[in-house]
Amino acid sequence: MAGDFVFEEKVKIYDTDAQGVVHYAGYYRFFTDALESFSSSKLGETLSEVSKNIWFVVVESNAKYYKPARMGDKLDVHLSYKLLSDKSIRFDFKIFKSQELVCEGFITQVSIDRDEWKATPIPREILDKLA
Amino acid sequence: MAGDFVFEEKVKIYDTDAQGVVHYAGYYRFFTDALESFSSSKLGETLSEVSKNIWFVVVESNAKYYKPARMGDKLDVHLSYKLLSDKSIRFDFKIFKSQELVCEGFITQVSIDRDEWKATPIPREILDKLA
Amino acid sequence: MAGDFVFEEKVKIYDTDAQGVVHYAGYYRFFTDALESFSSSKLGETLSEVSKNIWFVVVESNAKYYKPARMGDKLDVHLSYKLLSDKSIRFDFKIFKSQELVCEGFITQVSIDRDEWKATPIPREILDKLA
Amino acid sequence: MAGDFVFEEKVKIYDTDAQGVVHYAGYYRFFTDALESFSSSKLGETLSEVSKNIWFVVVESNAKYYKPARMGDKLDVHLSYKLLSDKSIRFDFKIFKSQELVCEGFITQVSIDRDEWKATPIPREILDKLA
Repeated sequence: MAGDFVFEEKVKIYDTDAQGVVHYAGYYRFFTDALESFSSSKLGETLSEVSKNIWFVVVESNAKYYKPARMGDKLDVHLSYKLLSDKSIRFDFKIFKSQELVCEGFITQVSIDRDEWKATPIPREILDKLA
Repeated sequence: MAGDFVFEEKVKIYDTDAQGVVHYAGYYRFFTDALESFSSSKLGETLSEVSKNIWFVVVESNAKYYKPARMGDKLDVHLSYKLLSDKSIRFDFKIFKSQELVCEGFITQVSIDRDEWKATPIPREILDKLA
Repeated sequence: MAGDFVFEEKVKIYDTDAQGVVHYAGYYRFFTDALESFSSSKLGETLSEVSKNIWFVVVESNAKYYKPARMGDKLDVHLSYKLLSDKSIRFDFKIFKSQELVCEGFITQVSIDRDEWKATPIPREILDKLA
Repeated sequence: MAGDFVFEEKVKIYDTDAQGVVHYAGYYRFFTDALESFSSSKLGETLSEVSKNIWFVVVESNAKYYKPARMGDKLDVHLSYKLLSDKSIRFDFKIFKSQELVCEGFITQVSIDRDEWKATPIPREILDKLA
């Protein structure tokens, strides 16, 4: 947790559904926002734009839901990451509302050659910035 | 109304928000679904795929909301259209729930050259199919 | 324009579609974000939470699209508003990318009694804050 | 696979993002559609409406992505399920495009008392229909 990248989010009406709480798939918006913000500040641009030839694509997503979040709630999204191989990174997320854990999960991304749509090593300059 | 293309839709939980009804922007999903279904049946493919060089892009969207729709509601989406020029088409939608009008609106699309991103005449073969 | 409320937005990957630009319905997310931010700063809470008995519901939405916006683009969303009656407010939006107008539109909201789901005058304390 | 509930889906433009393929979170729409369709046909209504007092809420979601899906693709969503306890059900999904597996994952739902927002046994009549 110490050293995590933290992104603040506010629950919007379009994140909620008729049960009055954030729709389960809506939490992936929070994961994506935190990831794009992390990437902008750490790599200088969003992960998806990081290179003309390389794209990062999601190969797995997961979320566990512990407490409901409601419209207007302020959330802290904590992001940490680890390299799984020279081609893939796992980003872990913990979402807190007033210090209480409401959701945790992860997104695993793989670096691909966008023309061939095949896994390819993550470029050196990205690895250096993530190190 | 007679002669309209009609598409049946069912309200899903992700269309709703914490007010317990369909989120205002969610109706554009119903418009888009009806339009893609119309296009598939009339043109043989979705409007956005209709040509490698030509794309249709939305230049205006509008919706008026008369009655709320709720999860599980069955909706009939009526579509009609008219050519506004040799480059643009307006698609009009009326959404009914048990014969009652709940929403109406329109989407205006313009044919563009996708490389130059500039308005260009709608191809002859599309006009023929729409006539 | 002078005196407008201005909200900064950044285009996210989930706002875009396969045409490489923001999906037409995605602009309503920008309108909603600006409106919720305006409401929080002006009224102290989001418009939808402003009262236990009163809800604001959208009765019309409209957007005109002039230029495409792409992932990572920074947008300035300008909001202005006018009272249409003692029960309804129209919020107007202009979205700029580097001073260039990319989209404009509006959302008209009506104040309703949430139990009866009927139009009702906007509460005095909200009108005072908007005056 | 034999005996699975199968739901047909067609990829819409709003499911895609600027990478030209279905956005990772978009697959949860396919899971939800299949689940609501299964529930309507098996239980007579959508899972979220199945009772006035009982709600089903998602406690975990997961998806693995093997192949990209593009606009207009026809997908077969296979659903199977198992009871994890007297309060929770896991729904498993496999999504095929022309017999090729493009995505698999699951949603775990827990039965709650909607007033207390606490886990509660799944009602007998639902268990009987699922048996």
